Amino acid sequence: MSRIGVFGGMGPSATVDFLDKLVKLTPASRDQDHLPVIVASLPHIHDRSSAILGRGRDPLPQLLAGIDMLNQAAVGVIAIPCNSSHHWFDEMSRSSKAPLLHIAKTCVEAIDAAAGSRVAIFATRGALASGFYQRELLARGMNFILPDSEGAQKQVDSCIREVKAGNLEAGAQQLSQACQDAVRQGATTLIMGCTEIPIASRSADVFGLTLVDSSLELARASVAFALARGWNRPGWDS
Amino acid sequence: MSRIGVFGGMGPSATVDFLDKLVKLTPASRDQDHLPVIVASLPHIHDRSSAILGRGRDPLPQLLAGIDMLNQAAVGVIAIPCNSSHHWFDEMSRSSKAPLLHIAKTCVEAIDAAAGSRVAIFATRGALASGFYQRELLARGMNFILPDSEGAQKQVDSCIREVKAGNLEAGAQQLSQACQDAVRQGATTLIMGCTEIPIASRSADVFGLTLVDSSLELARASVAFALARGWNRPGWDS
Repeated sequence: MSRIGVFGGMGPSATVDFLDKLVKLTPASRDQDHLPVIVASLPHIHDRSSAILGRGRDPLPQLLAGIDMLNQAAVGVIAIPCNSSHHWFDEMSRSSKAPLLHIAKTCVEAIDAAAGSRVAIFATRGALASGFYQRELLARGMNFILPDSEGAQKQVDSCIREVKAGNLEAGAQQLSQACQDAVRQGATTLIMGCTEIPIASRSADVFGLTLVDSSLELARASVAFALARGWNRPGWDS
Repeated sequence: MSRIGVFGGMGPSATVDFLDKLVKLTPASRDQDHLPVIVASLPHIHDRSSAILGRGRDPLPQLLAGIDMLNQAAVGVIAIPCNSSHHWFDEMSRSSKAPLLHIAKTCVEAIDAAAGSRVAIFATRGALASGFYQRELLARGMNFILPDSEGAQKQVDSCIREVKAGNLEAGAQQLSQACQDAVRQGATTLIMGCTEIPIASRSADVFGLTLVDSSLELARASVAFALARGWNRPGWDS
């Protein structure tokens, strides 16, 4: 039970980005200092955002099958670098022996509530309709700004779609426009609440927004969970 | 049986680089066009090169355990983005239901034997002592150039060690020096026969050498194997 389980493929590039963060966040000077990780990258899971909005097939059976696969591989914790899938977090948690880390909780906990930030949320329409980011922020006494559904949200949607299609520059352009709009609305901090957005942000103009990367915060929580339990110590089979 | 199995963690950054190549090599405009992948990233496996040289613990039981884990996850093919571990390729193949792709075979097949290239091999001392690259080249009628064990090989060793420690710039500097030496020896083509070397090569001066990337060629073979069998078509659970 000394392995991090990653339920990925939603999307595949975001999974690679998340794994890269796990490696870089682990203090290591040789292979044997690193953390064992089992990844189930299952890209054929039905679109999460569409399903939440009532316009697509229910991905829950596939999500539960992925959680089961990771439990079969005896992982000790599960991270899912896909925000929208957290709409089904409770169902997945209940079916898992290994605990699940919640991406939105790790992300919102990274924001200093006392700093008086004005927080914008960029996520899929499904994740915003599900409302888990809004609930986490309100529970910590923070308000939020959402993109106009006929304006900046369209650019967020395009950004995510372009990254999933491998078009990083086009994704970055869309993200830049959405960021400019968020700043106009008064935002000072941006939750990148979809794991494709951090990939686009590498070459975007974010107009001075403080970025909070949901993928990075989930990776930090995963590494901290594993290091606290000594999973970086050789003896992986014990 | 419609999933690629990746036996990784040797080392972890090289595994991330390999997964990134799988994603980028797959023709896809949305998540659902991608290939299902199961990754066992098990970094605690004993050092392969040291073991081949008789100076370290035998990793074979751990290697067989990793192969077994991927078979338990019902993968249909296994790729191992670690060259040195291919010293135990036959033992791993015999214990696996899923076929294994051989990194050195995929890599050498990418070289045009008729082009008269003078091929240098950069790999761990263990992989060179095992000799699988030399055998593959000779079997295809190609000769090879090895770095001087007291000279350029020390830079190759350092390059690999620096990348494993996350020091990419230092790794690139060591690689540049080794490449300069290979060119002095008359090489025109370089087999990057250790999966850390391509990571260092991104910011190295390779002095005009044609690079053959073992990680990229293994990724190409993996994607081709999977696409030929339609594993990119939704219906992942069937």
